[in-house]
Amino acid sequence: MSKTLERRAMLREQLIEAAERAMSARGLAGLKTRDLAQEIGVANGAVYNLVADVDELVLMVGSRTLAQLDLALSEAEANGPPAPAETLVRIAIAYCDFAAANLELWRALFEHRMAPDKPLPDWAVSDQMHLFRHIHQPLALLFPERPVEEISVTARSLFSAVHGMVALGLEQKLIAIPLGVLRREIATMVRAMVAGLQAQAGAA
Amino acid sequence: MSKTLERRAMLREQLIEAAERAMSARGLAGLKTRDLAQEIGVANGAVYNLVADVDELVLMVGSRTLAQLDLALSEAEANGPPAPAETLVRIAIAYCDFAAANLELWRALFEHRMAPDKPLPDWAVSDQMHLFRHIHQPLALLFPERPVEEISVTARSLFSAVHGMVALGLEQKLIAIPLGVLRREIATMVRAMVAGLQAQAGAA
Repeated sequence: MSKTLERRAMLREQLIEAAERAMSARGLAGLKTRDLAQEIGVANGAVYNLVADVDELVLMVGSRTLAQLDLALSEAEANGPPAPAETLVRIAIAYCDFAAANLELWRALFEHRMAPDKPLPDWAVSDQMHLFRHIHQPLALLFPERPVEEISVTARSLFSAVHGMVALGLEQKLIAIPLGVLRREIATMVRAMVAGLQAQAGAA
Repeated sequence: MSKTLERRAMLREQLIEAAERAMSARGLAGLKTRDLAQEIGVANGAVYNLVADVDELVLMVGSRTLAQLDLALSEAEANGPPAPAETLVRIAIAYCDFAAANLELWRALFEHRMAPDKPLPDWAVSDQMHLFRHIHQPLALLFPERPVEEISVTARSLFSAVHGMVALGLEQKLIAIPLGVLRREIATMVRAMVAGLQAQAGAA
């Protein structure tokens, strides 16, 4: 790599890290490219030699957040009995804990919207889809007769349900709910959903 | 009422309706008091003789949205067999349909945040809590031995889970999912949750 390219790669890395710190502290709204440029010591406009636009920068930070989440979910998978229903409970609680510990970065994953005419890049879609394996694998063990597409729909539903509990629970918009109660409720509801889906499958 | 008070009440109503139209078309971000003032024919600053601030205006629109949602949920309750598990399924689907039909107004209910130092007024909290009776009542029938506080926690969990499915389903951020599939999935998951919770209660 030439010196120039090396310097550009280094600055790009610094820019993404600075953006991550800013978003972690103040959320998506706290991201000002002017401040980031100053922090890494380049002119305002030079930021756009490093990333195409703010969307790309936010997606790069999101990619790092998803990688951290991936690690947390893998750990939750490994740390306990391999029974798929209980694995799903541990993953759901790990998701809740991750969101609570990385509130602004986690919120940004869902609040960020691309400009209306710009599709999400393929790599960002595949980053997100990759995480679904954590839910997909235990579900496939629980429902071995179901086709992959059906398992994917159920994985999405289960994720969305847990996400809703985490999002409204951490938002504390309606009722303040302590994190311990939220974790217990998530475990209860995931167990109920899995048991209910198994009963439906048995009856079908 | 004096002529002046009458005129103020009328203008306030017009302001709230104009705000509702703006938010319905362009979401929370589409709300510009300058445009609203022009629409109802008052000077810019005069808006703040009608409402204390934009937060109050958004909460007034939210109150109307919640009243419409209340109607939709009451209809869903009445239109079908009274068995509580199936009532919960109809309510969940009605919630999904309402969100899909009133996307921006429904989103605004959740996206709006008060200024950090300002608590939500009591009437707005009670508007929101009032809606929970639609979930609370069938759950109380299903679990007659549970104390009210426990039913409230379960009602909140069930609502949050359905809300998550609706929010991510309508967002179409990860996978585009047709409304018909989403409605079917919500029914499946609500039935699974209720059956699973009943099995847990039976085993306890």
